[in-house]
Amino acid sequence: MKIGYIGLGKMGSGIARNLLRAGHELIVFNRTGEKAEALAGEGAHIAGSLGEACREREAVMTMLADDPAVAGVVFGEHGIASSLEPESVHISQSTISTRLAKQLASEHRNRGHEFVSAPVFGRPEIAEAGKLVVVVAGDRKTVERCRPLFDAIGRATFIAGSEPWQANAVKLCGNFMIASMIEAFSEAYATLRKCAVDHHLFREVMNELFGSPIYKNYGRIVADQEFDPPGFTLMLGLKDIRLVLEAAEDVNAPMPLASVIRNHMISGVAQGQEDLDWSSIARVLARNAGLEN
Amino acid sequence: MKIGYIGLGKMGSGIARNLLRAGHELIVFNRTGEKAEALAGEGAHIAGSLGEACREREAVMTMLADDPAVAGVVFGEHGIASSLEPESVHISQSTISTRLAKQLASEHRNRGHEFVSAPVFGRPEIAEAGKLVVVVAGDRKTVERCRPLFDAIGRATFIAGSEPWQANAVKLCGNFMIASMIEAFSEAYATLRKCAVDHHLFREVMNELFGSPIYKNYGRIVADQEFDPPGFTLMLGLKDIRLVLEAAEDVNAPMPLASVIRNHMISGVAQGQEDLDWSSIARVLARNAGLEN
Amino acid sequence: MKIGYIGLGKMGSGIARNLLRAGHELIVFNRTGEKAEALAGEGAHIAGSLGEACREREAVMTMLADDPAVAGVVFGEHGIASSLEPESVHISQSTISTRLAKQLASEHRNRGHEFVSAPVFGRPEIAEAGKLVVVVAGDRKTVERCRPLFDAIGRATFIAGSEPWQANAVKLCGNFMIASMIEAFSEAYATLRKCAVDHHLFREVMNELFGSPIYKNYGRIVADQEFDPPGFTLMLGLKDIRLVLEAAEDVNAPMPLASVIRNHMISGVAQGQEDLDWSSIARVLARNAGLEN
Amino acid sequence: MKIGYIGLGKMGSGIARNLLRAGHELIVFNRTGEKAEALAGEGAHIAGSLGEACREREAVMTMLADDPAVAGVVFGEHGIASSLEPESVHISQSTISTRLAKQLASEHRNRGHEFVSAPVFGRPEIAEAGKLVVVVAGDRKTVERCRPLFDAIGRATFIAGSEPWQANAVKLCGNFMIASMIEAFSEAYATLRKCAVDHHLFREVMNELFGSPIYKNYGRIVADQEFDPPGFTLMLGLKDIRLVLEAAEDVNAPMPLASVIRNHMISGVAQGQEDLDWSSIARVLARNAGLEN
Repeated sequence: MKIGYIGLGKMGSGIARNLLRAGHELIVFNRTGEKAEALAGEGAHIAGSLGEACREREAVMTMLADDPAVAGVVFGEHGIASSLEPESVHISQSTISTRLAKQLASEHRNRGHEFVSAPVFGRPEIAEAGKLVVVVAGDRKTVERCRPLFDAIGRATFIAGSEPWQANAVKLCGNFMIASMIEAFSEAYATLRKCAVDHHLFREVMNELFGSPIYKNYGRIVADQEFDPPGFTLMLGLKDIRLVLEAAEDVNAPMPLASVIRNHMISGVAQGQEDLDWSSIARVLARNAGLEN
Repeated sequence: MKIGYIGLGKMGSGIARNLLRAGHELIVFNRTGEKAEALAGEGAHIAGSLGEACREREAVMTMLADDPAVAGVVFGEHGIASSLEPESVHISQSTISTRLAKQLASEHRNRGHEFVSAPVFGRPEIAEAGKLVVVVAGDRKTVERCRPLFDAIGRATFIAGSEPWQANAVKLCGNFMIASMIEAFSEAYATLRKCAVDHHLFREVMNELFGSPIYKNYGRIVADQEFDPPGFTLMLGLKDIRLVLEAAEDVNAPMPLASVIRNHMISGVAQGQEDLDWSSIARVLARNAGLEN
Repeated sequence: MKIGYIGLGKMGSGIARNLLRAGHELIVFNRTGEKAEALAGEGAHIAGSLGEACREREAVMTMLADDPAVAGVVFGEHGIASSLEPESVHISQSTISTRLAKQLASEHRNRGHEFVSAPVFGRPEIAEAGKLVVVVAGDRKTVERCRPLFDAIGRATFIAGSEPWQANAVKLCGNFMIASMIEAFSEAYATLRKCAVDHHLFREVMNELFGSPIYKNYGRIVADQEFDPPGFTLMLGLKDIRLVLEAAEDVNAPMPLASVIRNHMISGVAQGQEDLDWSSIARVLARNAGLEN
Repeated sequence: MKIGYIGLGKMGSGIARNLLRAGHELIVFNRTGEKAEALAGEGAHIAGSLGEACREREAVMTMLADDPAVAGVVFGEHGIASSLEPESVHISQSTISTRLAKQLASEHRNRGHEFVSAPVFGRPEIAEAGKLVVVVAGDRKTVERCRPLFDAIGRATFIAGSEPWQANAVKLCGNFMIASMIEAFSEAYATLRKCAVDHHLFREVMNELFGSPIYKNYGRIVADQEFDPPGFTLMLGLKDIRLVLEAAEDVNAPMPLASVIRNHMISGVAQGQEDLDWSSIARVLARNAGLEN
């Protein structure tokens, strides 16, 4: 397929590379040029402007940091909304609010575009390996038309529903599940450290018990307090928890555990941890138990 | 080794069977006789009384429901405290409070007994298969002396510390980790159901993401609302969360997530769910989101 | 002073009447005309349009339901932003977000207007009696210039700071204090009802203990479950708690109690209580304790 | 009436003095003798032992720190249980658990004694002035017989029910109401300080709004951070919140706000604040918002 790819951060670059490998024709665009050039050597064309990245494309895919970044690229001057060809599809892979996803769906529909949400689970190395978990929602026919793209970048594709925002709800709830695990580790570690139990021992027991690579990874990061450099910053983590609470409030569902996590994240930011890994909420819990760090 | 085994519920029976298979000499005792007889056919002797189960034993092991049951068997008439031979060891496998574990350690020490805490993770079928995860704490020499017993019943043994109660702290924190996952599933499912997203779809995404048998098991139970018959009752779950909060309070560690779970469990009990599975807190969350069930 | 008054709901009408009584020259505007006519008999002029209500006015005061209403009246066609005379002041009395207050301050400054936030505490009958508590923030000179207006409508005026949004922060925190009292009553009543203690008895003890008219009023409303007609709807209460959490997040302050209240309010809305009094969160707590209502 | 009074702390001494003033015949007992002697000058007899304080008394009143102190004085050697005359009444004024109150009722009944719970609201200077708020529960006839005692020490007496523990439930819920107000002030102050709003200004607004002496008192203590010397220690406050959560759990009522307070109190204790005033939980909230103190 003829694809425009916008947003070449760690995730986007890995995804774009796998699309190229699968034989799709790619024109890429990034706010800062360097990252685009790295992909040129692998066969991607480089767009000089947003508009160019949309011209004569069957699909334009975006992978950007947050709501304002996506809104800017879509609704800004020469943005996707005005540049996308009729009947082409915009595939949004960013972790954005369900509200923005609803707005995107509506605005694209008004312009005769298709819109699909396809956020992904997995860290940059997983993106690079083409082993992401892809959650897709949107018009069934359009989703099927795009399936080769999802197959190229992920190990599994799940269809969340026919409304694009539903995929974003699933993505936000998934991040909430991970944050809940981090919160639980943080509380258990603080308690056990005060019981003079080695928290690395507990980490090993949990590895044995849950048998999950995610538990293994975060159990270790938190136990070692390896928060810098961050895999995913506290600032972005707080954004996602805010968005899941907002999505839940829009359907009148309370999420008390998400509220607890939110308060600890805010406290972490208040202590200057915004650029550390989001699992550094463990420091908030440790401090509240009277531990030095 | 010459073992007395007290408490032949689902867990205790499976453990006793594996001790027999490993060649240990077992005399068993249970409040109700039938369960003991089932083990007689596999080579166990049946004790007519608590005292008899303690006589000339190198170790007496207990697997009982809660603090009062353990305290009754240890401090009651002809109980373990008065019947155990000097230098013999009492191995407690029940999920009890750290407070009772401290008291048991102190009382046994005063009587010249050894005391080891060795609670286990795993459901009855895992106990039957001899694949439990065993967490042990106590005097190092004594623990080493008993290691063949742990090897006979589990797939992995972890040493939590030299104070028996530390193993109980680890066990309680482990149950808290599982309860946290249930709470997180409950909140995510309620939100997604109100988003008209199939929660079974979310379950599958989480299976793919976490790759954990425990997520797979509870994700399904909660999605199917398969709370009866219970694998572990809400009443026992609430007991464990109460005990982890108590253990944490004793070392001045707050556990806000555990408090959230506790309140939902109490609400479940208030609605008559005490004999359902502990994952039925999902019903509390569903109700609070305005769902019928 | 020559005043334009916009928004003649229960609160605005009472305030406008007291401004008239104090001798100020008033031109009033309301989306629906009837309420304006009621004030005509007391000496107010009626504006045919928003623009007319702003012409040749020293101050324009607004008392509207929420952020969108205020933003509409200020930034809409012929709105205050474009109609207010240079050097005139816009006095906002609505309970709005600190974010909108910051935006209003900035936009008015750019147009050469003054802007003061002056939200009030008190119910309609207090507004009618001219006994409100007024919290003001903005440029000191401008605030002093407007002081006769505040004296005309309230029993006490407090200066919160020189940035208008600070008055909104105080107002939101004040509403949070009242909501906290309602939450506390709700939890205590549910517990005591399950202890077979008459909660009216508890209400009387709290009256004696706190000696506060607000405790007396809400203690009774909640005990009698007198939620309809509402004094202040759950929908508006949820809005205010959302805004206080947002204001606190903007300065990196966690508010765990506000989060608890928020979740109970959402649960109340999920159960269809959005148009009942905000103190109907008591029903959520009662239900969670297994009480019929 | 012929009264034995046991426990002459700040509260007990003030109460005993008012009983003497009302003409009752008093014999007093305190663990440490000095405090008893101070009352001798005002007409009290001094008991040399617990047993002596119970002999030939129509009523024995106790005002002690916590459950263990009360249990010790009642069930210890020569304690009230064994020394009280048949048909005499034990009036417990301490803030104890509903569980101990139930046990006291049952044990006294078995011995042919009457038992009444009569905890009080008010600080030492209120006790001294005979202006306490008294909450009483127990057999109606016995309560009426003792009414002159309550009239002598308080400004108002409320009957909570016919089971003594019900008065303790009311007392614990009342302390929870006060703690909720402290929590709310703590959160609002932290947020407003980060908004650069003077929290003393907020205190004054709340005084005007609530018009309550309790708000005035705690609003000032928290704003001034006047936590030492304590009016009521954090350790005792935590005990009461633990007891209200326990009482609520016994009737299957969740109290999420009480759980939030509990966690902040534990965090305060973990930071070494156990002997400061219980309102020092404000420091926990300030720290969590990134404020120095």
